[in-house]
Amino acid sequence: MRNVSIIGYGCTKFGEHWNKSFRQLIAEAGIEAILSAGIEGKDIEALYGGSMASGRFIGQEHIGALIADQLGLNPIPATRVENACASGGTALRSGYMAIKSGEYDMVAVGGVEKMTDVGVEQAAIALGGAGDQETELFHGASFPALYALMARAHMDKYGTTEEQLAAVSVKNHHNATLNPKAQFQREITIETVMNSGYIATPLKLLDCSPITDGAAAVILCESEKAKKLCEQPIEIIASEQTSDTLSLAARESLTETKAAKIAANRAFERAKLKPKDIDFAEVHDCFSIAEILAIEAIGFCEQGQGGKFTEQGNTALDGQIPVNVSGGLKAKGHPVGATGIAQAVEACLQLQGKAEKRQVKDAKIGLAHNVGGSGATCTLHMFKALEGKN
Amino acid sequence: MRNVSIIGYGCTKFGEHWNKSFRQLIAEAGIEAILSAGIEGKDIEALYGGSMASGRFIGQEHIGALIADQLGLNPIPATRVENACASGGTALRSGYMAIKSGEYDMVAVGGVEKMTDVGVEQAAIALGGAGDQETELFHGASFPALYALMARAHMDKYGTTEEQLAAVSVKNHHNATLNPKAQFQREITIETVMNSGYIATPLKLLDCSPITDGAAAVILCESEKAKKLCEQPIEIIASEQTSDTLSLAARESLTETKAAKIAANRAFERAKLKPKDIDFAEVHDCFSIAEILAIEAIGFCEQGQGGKFTEQGNTALDGQIPVNVSGGLKAKGHPVGATGIAQAVEACLQLQGKAEKRQVKDAKIGLAHNVGGSGATCTLHMFKALEGKN
Repeated sequence: MRNVSIIGYGCTKFGEHWNKSFRQLIAEAGIEAILSAGIEGKDIEALYGGSMASGRFIGQEHIGALIADQLGLNPIPATRVENACASGGTALRSGYMAIKSGEYDMVAVGGVEKMTDVGVEQAAIALGGAGDQETELFHGASFPALYALMARAHMDKYGTTEEQLAAVSVKNHHNATLNPKAQFQREITIETVMNSGYIATPLKLLDCSPITDGAAAVILCESEKAKKLCEQPIEIIASEQTSDTLSLAARESLTETKAAKIAANRAFERAKLKPKDIDFAEVHDCFSIAEILAIEAIGFCEQGQGGKFTEQGNTALDGQIPVNVSGGLKAKGHPVGATGIAQAVEACLQLQGKAEKRQVKDAKIGLAHNVGGSGATCTLHMFKALEGKN
Repeated sequence: MRNVSIIGYGCTKFGEHWNKSFRQLIAEAGIEAILSAGIEGKDIEALYGGSMASGRFIGQEHIGALIADQLGLNPIPATRVENACASGGTALRSGYMAIKSGEYDMVAVGGVEKMTDVGVEQAAIALGGAGDQETELFHGASFPALYALMARAHMDKYGTTEEQLAAVSVKNHHNATLNPKAQFQREITIETVMNSGYIATPLKLLDCSPITDGAAAVILCESEKAKKLCEQPIEIIASEQTSDTLSLAARESLTETKAAKIAANRAFERAKLKPKDIDFAEVHDCFSIAEILAIEAIGFCEQGQGGKFTEQGNTALDGQIPVNVSGGLKAKGHPVGATGIAQAVEACLQLQGKAEKRQVKDAKIGLAHNVGGSGATCTLHMFKALEGKN
């Protein structure tokens, strides 16, 4: 049985990078990852790159080959994977399986999106391709509208309030003030959120994650080898991926994310852990309601109680289960293809005790939850630190 | 050591499907594959879908989830892979590695492209995203132009003639007359090709593969299990993938496809075979010159001799090494994401003796060579039939 660990990682600052191209962003993250692993490019045997809509954003497909070329890694096999906003998490799982397969011992995994080269309207249309183009986007249902339906249903069924949704954004903005790579490093209040304009009721501007440029990368290595190369490899102790219907209308429920529930159950079973064993989690808060759905699906709180649980401070940095300590998609930023890898990078920083001002005390086990579309793809990973070389 | 076999396959007719959508095409191929494997949807544990530019062609990303949804396979993990025109071959290799990893025993792999919903100009721009957008497409170098450069260099260096290039198209059109699923089921002559208009000198209209709609799918299974389920599983005896620089200008040579050479060498080594052991090959003839470069890279003839080798009839259906017996990309058609999977389907038909009028006599070992862009990705697979259940 081969296991897989992260031995190096890199992440650009997230934000509006008017002076950096897609290529520069992924090269920056990739080189940082290679250097932090203490390896050379020639040690890498294969590459997976997650990017959602590079065709629509920068007119470029064939992203796997582009990254290998940019990093001077030819002729290694290089593959782009695309699962909408879960492209990063899927790339991570693809690299994990490539090592499990015995074909490779060392694999680079990256995620990147350059979203600001097109206008906001064009970006919204590109992102709409994560949902069901025929039954949703074509009729005008962009992503804020889809998540607004879920939020409204959750409010109706469980009494979740707009203030509770706002509490997600307030917490994540606070965490982002402690993260020098975050897009929005400023505090907001419940009032700021409540007074921001409606995008799709009940979701307001500050319930929504931003349009972001950024890239992240990790170096994966078979765990036995990793222990010889690295002082503190971060082992992937569970990796799961699931799917659900593409369109929201076809789901059994608007208030539960079934793919995430199944992924979480399987991951806990595989890792022989329970939700209470998790010390921190990076979850997919593309909208405030998405974080509430996520913490319920993973089992950090009861179904329907995510709003109250958040409002009570349980998911704060010093709470019972710190969620999105990086600032999350809301405040760290959401370069869609990079997000799933950036979550893994945060897990490494926390588990190695390098997260500085936002360090979770005694962090032993981390979790990353990455969603594509309105929930049609979910990837879920768990991480823990190993003892490596001295 | 786990091995991987194909136990079922399906392929739509290739052509201009004005009355079928992307979803219908992949559902048709997928259902055919599931039925031919004699399994049920619930037996499938994971899915990989290859599609190059669905965002530009139909406004839809998140193709993995879409296919799983269309085929009623939720909640299995479903992943889109995109490596330009090698998306299909890459999906095949991804499924192969997923079974090798021990995570799954049975995996569905599909490829699909719906290219005719946009105009030809828009299609050319989308396809240009397979090359280097910044240094090629942006400056007007579309794919015919890139391959024209390779053709001209080959003509200059080795004396290859336009008539020799034409011989590739004539042969592939002939083979397509024997394939009821081919887009162009009609004979052409050297004169027809020579008299077709120049697209990018020296390449003429009939040197170029068409814009095509289509889908193909295969069901992969761990080989020991496959032998119990299937009368004649088709084992993947070699699977390789390589990369090269994205832009043509950065290559060491215009007259050799390095990624294909490396992939072929590794595959022959892994399978303990030589080029003379191959009984037929499906190669990536997106342009006539591409087939010549392919047969040289694989080693069916000497470097530089591909034109003459073809003109002499060595790659004909009754020649020394039949190449593109299906009609190839040129005449069977080239729905880019589907092509690599359709090549595997042809390999299955040939090795099971079911290729009817285009059956290669005593076909024991088949090869499939799939290229992305102007050669920045290459996948290469070899297949042979196993004895299964009686």
